[in-house]
Amino acid sequence: MPRASDSSQYLIAPDPDRGGLSRVVSGRDQTGAPVETRVVEERPLTIFLNSREIVTAMTIGDYPEYLALGFLRNQGMLPPDAEVTGIDYDPEIDTVVVRTARETDFEEKLKKKIRTSGCAVGTVFGDMMEGLEGLRLPPAELRTSWLYALAATISRTPSLYLAAGAIHGTVLCRRDRPLVYMEDVGRHNAVDKVAGWMMAEGVPPDDKILYTTGRLTSEMVIKTALMGIPVLASRSGFTAWGVEIARQVGLTLIGRLRGRRFLCLSGNERVIRDADPASVPGEPRGGACRSARS
Amino acid sequence: MPRASDSSQYLIAPDPDRGGLSRVVSGRDQTGAPVETRVVEERPLTIFLNSREIVTAMTIGDYPEYLALGFLRNQGMLPPDAEVTGIDYDPEIDTVVVRTARETDFEEKLKKKIRTSGCAVGTVFGDMMEGLEGLRLPPAELRTSWLYALAATISRTPSLYLAAGAIHGTVLCRRDRPLVYMEDVGRHNAVDKVAGWMMAEGVPPDDKILYTTGRLTSEMVIKTALMGIPVLASRSGFTAWGVEIARQVGLTLIGRLRGRRFLCLSGNERVIRDADPASVPGEPRGGACRSARS
Repeated sequence: MPRASDSSQYLIAPDPDRGGLSRVVSGRDQTGAPVETRVVEERPLTIFLNSREIVTAMTIGDYPEYLALGFLRNQGMLPPDAEVTGIDYDPEIDTVVVRTARETDFEEKLKKKIRTSGCAVGTVFGDMMEGLEGLRLPPAELRTSWLYALAATISRTPSLYLAAGAIHGTVLCRRDRPLVYMEDVGRHNAVDKVAGWMMAEGVPPDDKILYTTGRLTSEMVIKTALMGIPVLASRSGFTAWGVEIARQVGLTLIGRLRGRRFLCLSGNERVIRDADPASVPGEPRGGACRSARS
Repeated sequence: MPRASDSSQYLIAPDPDRGGLSRVVSGRDQTGAPVETRVVEERPLTIFLNSREIVTAMTIGDYPEYLALGFLRNQGMLPPDAEVTGIDYDPEIDTVVVRTARETDFEEKLKKKIRTSGCAVGTVFGDMMEGLEGLRLPPAELRTSWLYALAATISRTPSLYLAAGAIHGTVLCRRDRPLVYMEDVGRHNAVDKVAGWMMAEGVPPDDKILYTTGRLTSEMVIKTALMGIPVLASRSGFTAWGVEIARQVGLTLIGRLRGRRFLCLSGNERVIRDADPASVPGEPRGGACRSARS
């Protein structure tokens, strides 16, 4: 049976009332009547690796240090053994600089790449795929009682999504407990913030479950695998290649998780069906639609 | 009153049965029963501008030439007067090369940028914002009868979304008629394909409406504005900055368009409410959820 939980279990929970993350915007509805509605903010954050400008990401603006660290890590620009000597966030100019003890290998690659074809953008994806070669995630069991409990807890957790919509969430979990719940305008930013937190705190990935509201595309599956997390679950759909990669690396992949229903696309042999789906409440009408996120 | 229309009005409609865009994947449901489900494909496409590698995009794979052209145009890498001398798509190596008569200004900018800070990624956003300065879209009226008719037609059009889910759609429309309906795994790719088609066909933007299933973020609003289209509508939500930019450039912005309901965030003075919302059917339960896209 899913167990009711409250957000006090979280190490980091969303803080929807925090200033600067949302604001009230006025508009008119279909009848012409004025309407005030809360919407999420979105601001540019430029990420530097040492003296090198890497990317400008659009973000709601919380946890810029984790976002920068996780982005660089997830793009393969920071090797696992990189010694991060500092992370400087400057809210005045919307920049965050990640400093390492020595130049990273990525910078060498980038220099070479610039000489040959001009820009690093095209290499990022190749680098991510490269990291997957020979990768095999540790076999991890997944109990459906955890899955149902997590979905129930997360959907009831006060969040920017519930307050303002049009935002994605990613939650790092262990067994039936959600630990870190990050939100952002882009689903990849939310995952990157989780990755940054894990890196900064030295959190082991082997016993974790990653829950996301976003679709299970190849890039999402690759990121989760590179983070070393053996289980990925989402209420959304998936792509053919996302499924293929999950099977290749031994990632347990759960999609379309809604109420009592879900679909296991990879790793079904590691799923322990210890909860009776009939005992799980179906998704209420109001909660069924999360398409304002899309 | 919304008028029923069929997909034969389209110049380009989705072709969900076309080979290579989706495939059947097998999984297990919550009871452990085997399930076969259709899912969209996703494959890398590397875009070159002349001899320069620009980006690798993840795409379902249709209309690679329009995607490449629209991407380069929407990123400000192809000036409006650029003479495109050829677009070569090579399905064997998943690349598309856009050739111009002379080196574009972007390539000069890129070279300079590489010398100073290493990579073009960070400049793209700045370049897009730059293009907005002084931009003011032509005032265009929007009738709510068109809006309701478009939403009704589009939602009934056979599509990959209806067949497989987890995909975004963008539709270029004129008055109450949808013209070009593109789909892709990323909402930006779908818009870029529309932009590429417009550029290739020399289609004027002034009298057009862009309908998207995705959220109205700053980047989506900026793209629409740079394409010169004065009306943008979505069934999804929006961000504060998206609204702000729309107001700045005089773009009519409609969000949360579902059944008879919608919210006008910008340009309400140009909206003509000629349809009685009460005469529009509410969104049916089954059609209310498009969150598998997200």
